[in-house]
Amino acid sequence: MAAAGARTKELENNHSDCFVQLSNPNVATMKEDVLYHFNLSTGTHDFPALFGDVKFVCVGGSPSRMNTFIRYVASELGLGRPGEEYPNICAGTDRYAMYKVGPVLSVSHGMGIPSIAIMLHELIKLLYHARCSNVTIIRIGTSGGIGLEPGSVVITQQAVDACFKPEFEQIVLGKRVVRSTDLDERLVQELAKCAADLSEFTTVVGNTMCTLDFYEGQGRLDGALCSYTEKDKQAYLHAAHAAGIRNIEMESSVFAAICSACGLRAAVVCVTLLDRLQGDQINSPHDVLVEYQQRPQRLVGYFIKKSLGKA
Amino acid sequence: MAAAGARTKELENNHSDCFVQLSNPNVATMKEDVLYHFNLSTGTHDFPALFGDVKFVCVGGSPSRMNTFIRYVASELGLGRPGEEYPNICAGTDRYAMYKVGPVLSVSHGMGIPSIAIMLHELIKLLYHARCSNVTIIRIGTSGGIGLEPGSVVITQQAVDACFKPEFEQIVLGKRVVRSTDLDERLVQELAKCAADLSEFTTVVGNTMCTLDFYEGQGRLDGALCSYTEKDKQAYLHAAHAAGIRNIEMESSVFAAICSACGLRAAVVCVTLLDRLQGDQINSPHDVLVEYQQRPQRLVGYFIKKSLGKA
Repeated sequence: MAAAGARTKELENNHSDCFVQLSNPNVATMKEDVLYHFNLSTGTHDFPALFGDVKFVCVGGSPSRMNTFIRYVASELGLGRPGEEYPNICAGTDRYAMYKVGPVLSVSHGMGIPSIAIMLHELIKLLYHARCSNVTIIRIGTSGGIGLEPGSVVITQQAVDACFKPEFEQIVLGKRVVRSTDLDERLVQELAKCAADLSEFTTVVGNTMCTLDFYEGQGRLDGALCSYTEKDKQAYLHAAHAAGIRNIEMESSVFAAICSACGLRAAVVCVTLLDRLQGDQINSPHDVLVEYQQRPQRLVGYFIKKSLGKA
Repeated sequence: MAAAGARTKELENNHSDCFVQLSNPNVATMKEDVLYHFNLSTGTHDFPALFGDVKFVCVGGSPSRMNTFIRYVASELGLGRPGEEYPNICAGTDRYAMYKVGPVLSVSHGMGIPSIAIMLHELIKLLYHARCSNVTIIRIGTSGGIGLEPGSVVITQQAVDACFKPEFEQIVLGKRVVRSTDLDERLVQELAKCAADLSEFTTVVGNTMCTLDFYEGQGRLDGALCSYTEKDKQAYLHAAHAAGIRNIEMESSVFAAICSACGLRAAVVCVTLLDRLQGDQINSPHDVLVEYQQRPQRLVGYFIKKSLGKA
């Protein structure tokens, strides 16, 4: 009977629940797991109680933007009172900020592949320790567009590197390891449908180039270092456009690679702050940039609401 | 007479002043330069008035640590009143934090090569627009040690990559560009002398490995992903030690490459929070870690005091 019960449970899990999994057998054997950059530990925090109900994780570079998002999504979902403050769950550190309301977790990741990678390792271990299942994770970020009107939103079809390849390369123990940067195709379509429902701003599905640098790495002419011409830059950006790339940012490739390795349904939704074919500097008025940055939040807020049957 | 005067001035500059220079001719022709991630612009801020007297720039990952440092150095140099608060010069953004007292600027850079690279591009342009000269820049950070007692401080002789090469590789317009990671040798010796003067904690001069990842990239066994054994890890770390590497962090190579390209005298001083030959998790008590993190600050604070003839 016990065996049959366990088997039924297993079948149920297989059919309905996709638990967050690690690609590392060592963690299950650890007595305590200190998530150093979150200032959280399984020895001092009850992860299943704190995070067990999480179904949506939204991540973005800026801590204050992720705080704005949790307040927005709380209000959209009818959770919490107007003006309610959400405590930073990682208050003991200033590496990242984390907020939660109902099934939604909002986490900052800083700028660049290494910064988001540290956060993702610890976030995925957090979700694993909390025994979360069926989690969708979405990066809501900012980017430079290629051939798009500023303020357009790009839903990433495929994350590619600075050579336009859908790969994330890493050095592990001194050796080159290459991972694929696949994202969830169905989720892309669901988000595109939400954008069409909302119909508030231009949204396209396209490839996203992920670079290790904002200035030379993205062909900018206005950094402290630059050894190429406007013509060289234009040739590179036009080649990127021809390869289906519609925006450039600094986190999508490792985000796609790590999330897919750990069974998380993942998407990237970024607003473009400028059209890189027209310039390099981000010099739109502050209030215009603030409104642009709310667009991925509005789209993903609507997606969550719809997923929960509240839209 | 005018020509002779200009020539005298030029000789004076050559002999006594080393101005911060850009490796990009485009910036001098720009009407306005928006340093987006600092929320500062030459169009709205008087850079020479605000920053012209800067001689020492200290950078580190954490905003709160860089705030602690400015208060510490103000007190050491006898500038400012006890308990005085220093406003965040980049208050309009949460990407970086910046503080100033007298000739010292303290700036946070987040985690990883891309994050510090964005900051350095904008910082060096700031120093250039402010017409700063004879600037010394020091990264005061945290790291994992190899074969050192936790709390030991490492002054970087040479920054090397994850294959132990003294190189910083970057993709520019889709092509591989490699820069050297040389640091100022005399500055290393001056800092080592200061450590000996202070004699408060173990300080060594050694190579520093700079990686793009904290978990797999540093051979940790406790990330969300891990596909190697303890034995593989130990072999890698011992090979690193044999190559003269004494600590591992995530910013030194691009820091050395960019600063040396722009004529800044640069050094890296990091405390080791653990010995990686003994483990992966950072689980020392909070107060112990806080004291460790003050050590690079004490060493560099003393160096600045001595440089200004106040020690």
